[in-house]
Amino acid sequence: MNKRLGKRTLQFETPPSVLSHACVVGKKEGQGPLKDTFDYIYDDNTCGEKSWEKAETRLQQDALDHALNKGGIPREQVEILLAGDLINQNIISSFGSRGMECSYLGVFGACSTMAEGLGLAATLIDGGFATTAAAVTSSHFCTAERQFRMPLEYGGQRPPSSQWTVTGSGAVILGTHDKPPYLSYFCPGIIVDAGITDANNMGAAMAPAAYDTLRTFFTDTGTTPSDFDHIFTGDLGKIGHEIVCDFFQKDGVTLGDRYEDCGMLIFGEDQDVHAGASGCGCAASVLCGHILNKLESGEYQRVLFAPTGALMNSTSVQQGESIPGICHCLVLEGAPKGQAERKA
Amino acid sequence: MNKRLGKRTLQFETPPSVLSHACVVGKKEGQGPLKDTFDYIYDDNTCGEKSWEKAETRLQQDALDHALNKGGIPREQVEILLAGDLINQNIISSFGSRGMECSYLGVFGACSTMAEGLGLAATLIDGGFATTAAAVTSSHFCTAERQFRMPLEYGGQRPPSSQWTVTGSGAVILGTHDKPPYLSYFCPGIIVDAGITDANNMGAAMAPAAYDTLRTFFTDTGTTPSDFDHIFTGDLGKIGHEIVCDFFQKDGVTLGDRYEDCGMLIFGEDQDVHAGASGCGCAASVLCGHILNKLESGEYQRVLFAPTGALMNSTSVQQGESIPGICHCLVLEGAPKGQAERKA
Repeated sequence: MNKRLGKRTLQFETPPSVLSHACVVGKKEGQGPLKDTFDYIYDDNTCGEKSWEKAETRLQQDALDHALNKGGIPREQVEILLAGDLINQNIISSFGSRGMECSYLGVFGACSTMAEGLGLAATLIDGGFATTAAAVTSSHFCTAERQFRMPLEYGGQRPPSSQWTVTGSGAVILGTHDKPPYLSYFCPGIIVDAGITDANNMGAAMAPAAYDTLRTFFTDTGTTPSDFDHIFTGDLGKIGHEIVCDFFQKDGVTLGDRYEDCGMLIFGEDQDVHAGASGCGCAASVLCGHILNKLESGEYQRVLFAPTGALMNSTSVQQGESIPGICHCLVLEGAPKGQAERKA
Repeated sequence: MNKRLGKRTLQFETPPSVLSHACVVGKKEGQGPLKDTFDYIYDDNTCGEKSWEKAETRLQQDALDHALNKGGIPREQVEILLAGDLINQNIISSFGSRGMECSYLGVFGACSTMAEGLGLAATLIDGGFATTAAAVTSSHFCTAERQFRMPLEYGGQRPPSSQWTVTGSGAVILGTHDKPPYLSYFCPGIIVDAGITDANNMGAAMAPAAYDTLRTFFTDTGTTPSDFDHIFTGDLGKIGHEIVCDFFQKDGVTLGDRYEDCGMLIFGEDQDVHAGASGCGCAASVLCGHILNKLESGEYQRVLFAPTGALMNSTSVQQGESIPGICHCLVLEGAPKGQAERKA
């Protein structure tokens, strides 16, 4: 079987199955509209730790522990762990994975990391290199603010286009058992640079990458947006979401209500986050609660999950570099095997 | 075929082949003992660019261009590019890959990145997800010093255990044609934390991970060090190299002269680099010149390539965290197919 379709889409011969999934979040996220979908909500964002970095590390460890416990999966069953985060040199993931006795592969796709880790985990399983693999990612408002913008104590003003980094982590354990949800396609994106240099407007910087990957995926697979119950980008926020809709509208394609952005779902209008939510933990915690729950309950049969990442750092922004974006997309199927074939 | 051996080793069913490889380095590296193995030596470490970050980006682009040109491989033949580096949020790799029209997957394993990228590229090819994939990584003395230690202008003294970050980049293009060198095994490591907190003694922090991965690989495959012409770690330097030898000696295994560290090969004794060389570009430029050249010429038949990474950042060191290490190992076979079966 040819596992490549068109330009970039990978089709799994035996779609790996989601054995278990979990997400843990901070206090503000736990007060938002998705509060009932999280496995654990911290009422103190230090998570009882002495530094923000240790707190974020705790989030990753807890998300994975919850996923293992919910699925009744012994820790030693996980053969390969793929993890990444926003903090310099991926230390949250490295520190969070210290206790694991399995192979560790660090991945980086900024806020698209969940799709990269999950997509690679699926290729390793479908390729015969693992029977159980896990993907984990996280973000924390306080580690991200300190590193990318200002110390919290500075109290800087946020422009209307800025987004609020989610404090949260999501973990998915993939395996080979014959039960939905399945992961059926992975379309790893290319780097798209639209020349945006404003680090307070990430949605605009990443939207062209989302459009490119979704369009390529539809062409590669001969599908259209209406073949999916729902399409989720990761953390484009209001501005990026609107840009993606506009791009498709110019092609004569109306995405409509089936297209939502995780960055617009996790916080309510009254929570004062300006253009929406962001961070690796945004897409990850919406996927590992809201989306996978609905795929399991049968409310969704088929979902496109397409988180985006802004591939910059604080030095590159200071040096006036533009912000390259990337988007990796995955198809998750909730229907029983055999009923989930492509319609096109 | 079962592609997993023992605890962690992945065995390729149809070992992917090295289609081409290249490395480019800075001035100091070009004055060292391996000077004749590099494809290009810059006599100015700015590489004609306006920032150190742009210079390192240039190194990655040039290494890949040299590899494509040497192999007569059209750029559009590369379907997936895996890249990573030491700079915050992997920006060198993201910026360096901006012109590529292929899928981009960011990887992070600190100085073990070349083995992670190459190993994953091989799983994607052997798994049927690509026919041509590339792995690229780099480091630059000036970007690393500024980020991890002090601005160059500060002129800080370096302790005897410190290592010198290599200015260089290596690129390997893997494919499916039936010609050596082949990549036959990939053993992705676990995170090993020996409790070292001295960021000026990376060799000691990483050596336990190298020992763990090599020992696991030998057990998984039923091989011994003498089944390999040569065993290379990435950038342990003199101190880490000695620790690895000691660990094996305690098990009754003498590694002897067949075990070398890339960090002890790239600079001469007279080049005043203290404990040796380091950086993603160290293992990558030794692999893409010295090692692969000897596998092609037939001087080496079978090599273990096992670079290590120190998974820390400057914040974690300031917070007193210990330095977790990781080591991923690969087997490269120079002999014609069929003659390169495992002896054990």
